Amino acid sequence: MQTPWLIRPLHLPFLLQPTTKNVLVIGGGSVGAIAALNLDVGGLANVTITLRSNYIPVFFQGYNIESCDHGKLEGWKPGEVLSAVPDLEKQGQKPYDYIVLATKNIPDVPPTAVDLVATALPKDNAHTVLVLIQNGLNIEKPFLEAYPNTMVLSGVSLIGSKEVRPGHIVQDEHDRLLIGAFANPNISKQDILEERAKEFVELYSRGGKTDCKYSPDVLHDRWRKLVYNACLNPICAITGLDTGRIRLAEGAVEGLVRPAMREIVAAAEALGVKLADDVVEYMIGVDPLDLYLAPSMLADVGKGNYIEFENLLGEPLREGKKAGVAMPTLEVLYQIAKALQWRTKAERGVVKVPPKRGEEE
Amino acid sequence: MQTPWLIRPLHLPFLLQPTTKNVLVIGGGSVGAIAALNLDVGGLANVTITLRSNYIPVFFQGYNIESCDHGKLEGWKPGEVLSAVPDLEKQGQKPYDYIVLATKNIPDVPPTAVDLVATALPKDNAHTVLVLIQNGLNIEKPFLEAYPNTMVLSGVSLIGSKEVRPGHIVQDEHDRLLIGAFANPNISKQDILEERAKEFVELYSRGGKTDCKYSPDVLHDRWRKLVYNACLNPICAITGLDTGRIRLAEGAVEGLVRPAMREIVAAAEALGVKLADDVVEYMIGVDPLDLYLAPSMLADVGKGNYIEFENLLGEPLREGKKAGVAMPTLEVLYQIAKALQWRTKAERGVVKVPPKRGEEE
Repeated sequence: MQTPWLIRPLHLPFLLQPTTKNVLVIGGGSVGAIAALNLDVGGLANVTITLRSNYIPVFFQGYNIESCDHGKLEGWKPGEVLSAVPDLEKQGQKPYDYIVLATKNIPDVPPTAVDLVATALPKDNAHTVLVLIQNGLNIEKPFLEAYPNTMVLSGVSLIGSKEVRPGHIVQDEHDRLLIGAFANPNISKQDILEERAKEFVELYSRGGKTDCKYSPDVLHDRWRKLVYNACLNPICAITGLDTGRIRLAEGAVEGLVRPAMREIVAAAEALGVKLADDVVEYMIGVDPLDLYLAPSMLADVGKGNYIEFENLLGEPLREGKKAGVAMPTLEVLYQIAKALQWRTKAERGVVKVPPKRGEEE
Repeated sequence: MQTPWLIRPLHLPFLLQPTTKNVLVIGGGSVGAIAALNLDVGGLANVTITLRSNYIPVFFQGYNIESCDHGKLEGWKPGEVLSAVPDLEKQGQKPYDYIVLATKNIPDVPPTAVDLVATALPKDNAHTVLVLIQNGLNIEKPFLEAYPNTMVLSGVSLIGSKEVRPGHIVQDEHDRLLIGAFANPNISKQDILEERAKEFVELYSRGGKTDCKYSPDVLHDRWRKLVYNACLNPICAITGLDTGRIRLAEGAVEGLVRPAMREIVAAAEALGVKLADDVVEYMIGVDPLDLYLAPSMLADVGKGNYIEFENLLGEPLREGKKAGVAMPTLEVLYQIAKALQWRTKAERGVVKVPPKRGEEE
């Protein structure tokens, strides 16, 4: 749905302070909305957000946000609310300073994250900095391939928030965001990567309502989060048990969760990333048992959505195996997750299932 | 529900031929009903059946059976239809010649199969022969422990039948039943085991409508069926895909089904059971793809029933590992199946889940 005449009513660049950066946030679910809010209240960013499923309610009524960081906001909107990623060339628009990707990242289901930003990123881009507030491993690689001179930042978010209905966000755990720069061999001055990362931290945290930090060791942050995301997340999705019940289920932690997590720790170590000794036990208990929280993949399977299994599970598995680490538990979890993804594709008619014998095509 | 005064109206032993055997069939679902029917039409058995969920319709109206072996039967009943396993001592009844167990065998959810037959089997039984038409490995062991002098026969059924509503059985694949004797070191004359097995084959196949054979190599028959039952069955249950879709799902056969099946073949071999070279490929394709058949565990998960994962998956896994075989795929499948079973217990309130924080007990 394109409503171009409605799109930019409040875009008044001549009122902006000189230090203000133009930031496009792609994806305005529970992570993207809070990111846009933090950038907005900091006052250093002119924020545009592009939405898909919740565009209509947010465009007309704004977000309703109940946030442990920001309090209760009714009808809040960033500067611009768009229904699609803008086409800079068609619209004769200058490049953004930052593009924040806060969508799910599902490379096995088009459009990929790279496809998604294509119209907002000039082919030879060196100006716009990409910020991937997305989970998993190697998510920067397709961008560095398509846009070799683009600076790509890593955002590892530890927020607890969900969109309870379209445009209504409940954030009940503090936003903690670790920002660092992905290595990019094509950037001649490496300092500039760190500079941009720190600048983005400043834009994001100036409002004082959030805990956003510069973190130089992107790989460490990502592997650490994978101890949860490559293990508990698919195990809960596959068994249909939340993070409380999986701990109550006899033998499930010992038989599934802990072995999987140890494989991630071993893979990280083989790749030069030393995780804290207590990371496995910490991640097993990180969600309070009696909140019975559903990790993202479990929630997605329940809603018939695609799951982010390739970046969360497939990539660390492939990297670990390449480094010679035995990962038998993650291997089977990966194969099952892949079958679940195929099931969703079949249910949506994206892959074709021939008719049953004796039934019409 | 006990209705003792209704129970035995047609029990007229003085009319029976001298060679007639008294047979109790426990469990009258899709397998037990066809077993009772074969024994009944053979004319050599006086058949009593005990039912649970379908007792009311079968007691009052009999079975409706649409069978590729027997044609269409309306209102068929064996000699006696009971709502519970009889208590021989209380009723002053003499022991059965055969007790056929055709229920699911779920040792992790009481009552166990041994509990189930208890009142129909004298403690020091040496007369009644048990016939276990049930899947999986080591199912005879609890019986041999509780009733050391009891002869236990193995029934490996390859029937394709289902109960579409209570008392209504549709059998669309031929009944093929392999009968052999489980080894029992306490039986002094080993020949008698083989004799009884052959006698039961005669009772079962005399009607001429079925393919029931004596098969001396019980372990071979059981491991062969496990290639399907320990692998495809739980993989379908876990992924939610039937045996057609699992073959269509990209990578699922290569990544899950085949590795799991090869582990079963290796475990069998380590235990002295050589399966045919083509058994893996045969079992992958044994269900016609375009019928999209749901194996029993998938059907059970869908209905919120318990799954037979301990005998089908747990026992071969434990035996294989004990014999030194690496079984990484089955290990993970087993742990997941165990978590699914726990989920069913939790959903039924059989295990207690503490209340969510902030919610009343």
